[in-house]
Amino acid sequence: MSKVFLQRGSKEEIEDGSGFMPKFDQNGLIPCIATSAKTGDVLMFAFMNEEALQKTIETGEAHYWSRSRGELWHKGASSGFVQKVTDMRVDCDQDCLWISVEVTGDEAACHKGYQSCFYRSVPVGQKPDKALNLNMNKTEKVFDPKDIYKD
Amino acid sequence: MSKVFLQRGSKEEIEDGSGFMPKFDQNGLIPCIATSAKTGDVLMFAFMNEEALQKTIETGEAHYWSRSRGELWHKGASSGFVQKVTDMRVDCDQDCLWISVEVTGDEAACHKGYQSCFYRSVPVGQKPDKALNLNMNKTEKVFDPKDIYKD
Repeated sequence: MSKVFLQRGSKEEIEDGSGFMPKFDQNGLIPCIATSAKTGDVLMFAFMNEEALQKTIETGEAHYWSRSRGELWHKGASSGFVQKVTDMRVDCDQDCLWISVEVTGDEAACHKGYQSCFYRSVPVGQKPDKALNLNMNKTEKVFDPKDIYKD
Repeated sequence: MSKVFLQRGSKEEIEDGSGFMPKFDQNGLIPCIATSAKTGDVLMFAFMNEEALQKTIETGEAHYWSRSRGELWHKGASSGFVQKVTDMRVDCDQDCLWISVEVTGDEAACHKGYQSCFYRSVPVGQKPDKALNLNMNKTEKVFDPKDIYKD
């Protein structure tokens, strides 16, 4: 364990203390919520491993662990949509991170071309008797994935 | 699988379609981010299983799966801080949910008495040479946990 992170302590130390004791799960990952510093919207949800978290802290740019590619993922390295971290928070039991980010350019965070990965709504508040239909939010793509991801 | 949720389809169906195909992980859980409909702040991060998600959709009140207690968790049932869901969204690959909630009373979501579980900041943007110190955000407890959780 890096000396930047402390080993997990007592429940009191974890919840009330000022020591940073992030909990990495059995796969060595901690979930991270990224919201837009500009709009407050949730842009994306991803995971960091210890290296990604350390690089994020050191550089101020969001790094994740890509579970699909199995590699460190400097967000924006291929798309150009780098995420500058303006605030990082940890939750009460220190097993989840929340970062506020400023995104280079058009604020896009989703590989589908939208600003946010959460571009569809689920209808709530009724007892559904059949499969639910998602609703597209009133949002336009800010880029065409074909133009950005060449391979 | 409930008929409310569809079985996972092709990548195109999952990312571009209007069918709701939530991905539950190997433990039968899907992560859920809850933000305040009033302030936009991330209040908490938790998991839903199929039953919790279905109850949330049917009742419009957030239900989670408590991993520590191993039971369905109607948020606010003991504390009174019920979360009324004003919007639910699903992300591009349908393996994460984001709900906006209105909280009964003092907006508290955290068992520690704070409005948000994310009451501490992690310093970012410097190369740390020693263990990081978390900073308390400028936030007051809105209740004393001892007054709410009697046992």
